[in-house]
Amino acid sequence: MKNIMEKSRIILGLSIVLSLSSACRVFRTHAEENALILKTQGSFAVGGTQKKEPGTFNLNDALKPAGQTYHGDHAHVFYQIPVRSKRYPLIFLHGAGQSRKTWETTPDGRDGFQNLFLRKGFGVYLLDQPRRAAAGRSMAAANLAPVADEQFWFTQFRIGNYPEYFPGVQFPKDSAALEQFYRQMTPNTGPFDASIISDAISSLVDKIGGGILVTHSQGGGPGWNTAIKNDKVKAIVAYEPYSGFVFPKGELPEPIKSTGLFGALNGTEIPLSEFKALTKLPIIIYYGDNIAKEPTITWNKDHWRSGLEMAKKWAAAINKHGGDAQVVHLPEIGIRGNTHFLFSDLNNVQVADLLSDWLKEKALVQ
Amino acid sequence: MKNIMEKSRIILGLSIVLSLSSACRVFRTHAEENALILKTQGSFAVGGTQKKEPGTFNLNDALKPAGQTYHGDHAHVFYQIPVRSKRYPLIFLHGAGQSRKTWETTPDGRDGFQNLFLRKGFGVYLLDQPRRAAAGRSMAAANLAPVADEQFWFTQFRIGNYPEYFPGVQFPKDSAALEQFYRQMTPNTGPFDASIISDAISSLVDKIGGGILVTHSQGGGPGWNTAIKNDKVKAIVAYEPYSGFVFPKGELPEPIKSTGLFGALNGTEIPLSEFKALTKLPIIIYYGDNIAKEPTITWNKDHWRSGLEMAKKWAAAINKHGGDAQVVHLPEIGIRGNTHFLFSDLNNVQVADLLSDWLKEKALVQ
Repeated sequence: MKNIMEKSRIILGLSIVLSLSSACRVFRTHAEENALILKTQGSFAVGGTQKKEPGTFNLNDALKPAGQTYHGDHAHVFYQIPVRSKRYPLIFLHGAGQSRKTWETTPDGRDGFQNLFLRKGFGVYLLDQPRRAAAGRSMAAANLAPVADEQFWFTQFRIGNYPEYFPGVQFPKDSAALEQFYRQMTPNTGPFDASIISDAISSLVDKIGGGILVTHSQGGGPGWNTAIKNDKVKAIVAYEPYSGFVFPKGELPEPIKSTGLFGALNGTEIPLSEFKALTKLPIIIYYGDNIAKEPTITWNKDHWRSGLEMAKKWAAAINKHGGDAQVVHLPEIGIRGNTHFLFSDLNNVQVADLLSDWLKEKALVQ
Repeated sequence: MKNIMEKSRIILGLSIVLSLSSACRVFRTHAEENALILKTQGSFAVGGTQKKEPGTFNLNDALKPAGQTYHGDHAHVFYQIPVRSKRYPLIFLHGAGQSRKTWETTPDGRDGFQNLFLRKGFGVYLLDQPRRAAAGRSMAAANLAPVADEQFWFTQFRIGNYPEYFPGVQFPKDSAALEQFYRQMTPNTGPFDASIISDAISSLVDKIGGGILVTHSQGGGPGWNTAIKNDKVKAIVAYEPYSGFVFPKGELPEPIKSTGLFGALNGTEIPLSEFKALTKLPIIIYYGDNIAKEPTITWNKDHWRSGLEMAKKWAAAINKHGGDAQVVHLPEIGIRGNTHFLFSDLNNVQVADLLSDWLKEKALVQ
């Protein structure tokens, strides 16, 4: 009988071990099932410079700048690392007039790329670029004024031609969401400087030992600059870059004329030796919908036509020199209605899946 | 024998259930043990106003303000809710020249109050107040300039009398930490306006159905204002408030003279009916070390002496009208060396424990 007890214990013992993992899951609540489980999170300043005023600091005249220092032009970084995270984290850089908010909750309250990629197991680093938001201490002065411009941005960012929404646009139609979208803008506290931004991001990449850059719009240029400066950038994902395209000396394309409100789009020449850095890592660029195929007087559609065309020329130049750059125009693969903010659009889960599939394809997800 | 088998199964079955919770814990890795487990996190804008320029928006002249809108003066809120969170979340409001960064990682890389209170099970709402950081769209203009002032702040915030550190100060002595501390400042993008700030926080409190306000320094005044406007503020915790103390009409104390660089400290008269709102909730105020007991020419110690004295008069006025306000001067309970940033000082775990003990004492932790 002792023998039978023993056997019974062994069988049950085995079943305990085998079922423990699922049993633990059963014991969790639904809330815990959907939980974000973070190994750690935190923030820091990175990059930047400082100045010291001539003279000696006088404790008895302490509001006088003499001898005092000022640190500025750093980026601010907020990071979150899930447990059992992928090898390379994603480093997110916003575009013009934006901050790390770009990647947080969408205007209508859904998960942005911050949460979506945490759930996929990626570490995320969200930047406020130098001279923006929490990284507001700028080495250069700025005058800020409340200029009414939101109907311009509505149109420029291809939600529609104000007040019309584009048919089938992937942007929520309620006024509360539009208000949230407008309120996520925040001003430059100093002039935009792509070089200062890429210096700060390069310092970040050194600090964390490598990462994948995800840029938006005006962030595109600082993104390429960072990869040129630092070979620990493992890949670049650029959503709708417009400016900052660099070409090897002698290979600069003609400016692309546009009825867009910023006029013709120019590339910039750099030495081939620098350009070659861009051939050493995979690069993917995504553009959304409602971008003209041919020149048009509809200025928003034409603005982004010039960006898309320049991006294609740029990718071709990289590939010609042995690189791996790809431009994906979403409507061409059947994904329609995306605005300039693809990653917070109504179909942003699909947009995120596209990206994670590409990262897997490039063997960047371990 | 069948009977014995049954008993054996029941006993083992019971032990499975009883030990499952600890077994699950054993199966977790060390990293998971220290993990932050969040039910959800996200961000949004709250409060604020808007304007519309006269005229009609013209799509063909879209850079002209006519007919366009501008939304500003909202707060930006980033929130995180742990699984099984306490009933009331903590709403964190930074002080002058700061942002939500105040509550994130400390200058030397340790957990700030954001992580410490998440680990204690509190939901946290981190504010960028209107006209600051990610909430930078201001309804009023601002001119920003890089004025060297960091040795002033070092001294004003009682790290020491620059370049000397106070003996035993709870601030890390390495230059990297000091640099991080300097870089967490970020400028006003419009004039400071306590009323606009409390309007935004009051909207937040309405939206989330109640919370406990935790303010720092200049945030103190907007904190009291919020509680006067909104009875869903369940408690106020103020770290080193200086300005914004309000008194019932006829009970205003004399200005407190000081050699501090902002001169004498005044309270403000408000109707008793408004003041009474402050008697309906528990309030606690903490001050750190190196604050003078008697008037002195050491201006930083004397500046905070005037703040501490006014806080005591204010708490006495609240208690006289039936309220529950308490001022804790940390050295008096044996906690020494704290700067103006008590919650990120080297002993911030102790400072956090003090706060959570007080919240329990006031039955605010369920």
